[in-house]
Amino acid sequence: MAASLNVKFGRAVRSFRSAAGYSQEAFADEIKVHRTYMGTLERGKANPTLDMIARIAAGLEISLATLFEAVETGRTDAG
Amino acid sequence: MAASLNVKFGRAVRSFRSAAGYSQEAFADEIKVHRTYMGTLERGKANPTLDMIARIAAGLEISLATLFEAVETGRTDAG
Repeated sequence: MAASLNVKFGRAVRSFRSAAGYSQEAFADEIKVHRTYMGTLERGKANPTLDMIARIAAGLEISLATLFEAVETGRTDAG
Repeated sequence: MAASLNVKFGRAVRSFRSAAGYSQEAFADEIKVHRTYMGTLERGKANPTLDMIARIAAGLEISLATLFEAVETGRTDAG
């Protein structure tokens, strides 16, 4: 079965976050979300809002288009 | 003041939806959301979840990357 969008989103975030040199905890602190939320999100168990998605992209210093291209292709330039 | 992300998102959706030849009501019916929700969203007063954003993009037959490129640049190929 193909991975759900939420799973693909979590994988892309994890990939960019890791490539940026952040631990999950450090990144959560950086964008001021709860540490457990980042874990939940990276495992594809969250359904983030637009505002939250934007906060994540800003923390990763990538555009939303870049983030979603990675979500949809499964590839990150960084990874 | 620059338009907020939610406003830019609503504008991009309206532009693609209109270019696809849907009235707001017909598009709401197509993707099975409440008609008033589409109005709220296009006015930038909603904070849609990833699942809802994906439903909208699927209804518009565009990728999420294309949608967010339009959100971020304020331009749609269609419009």
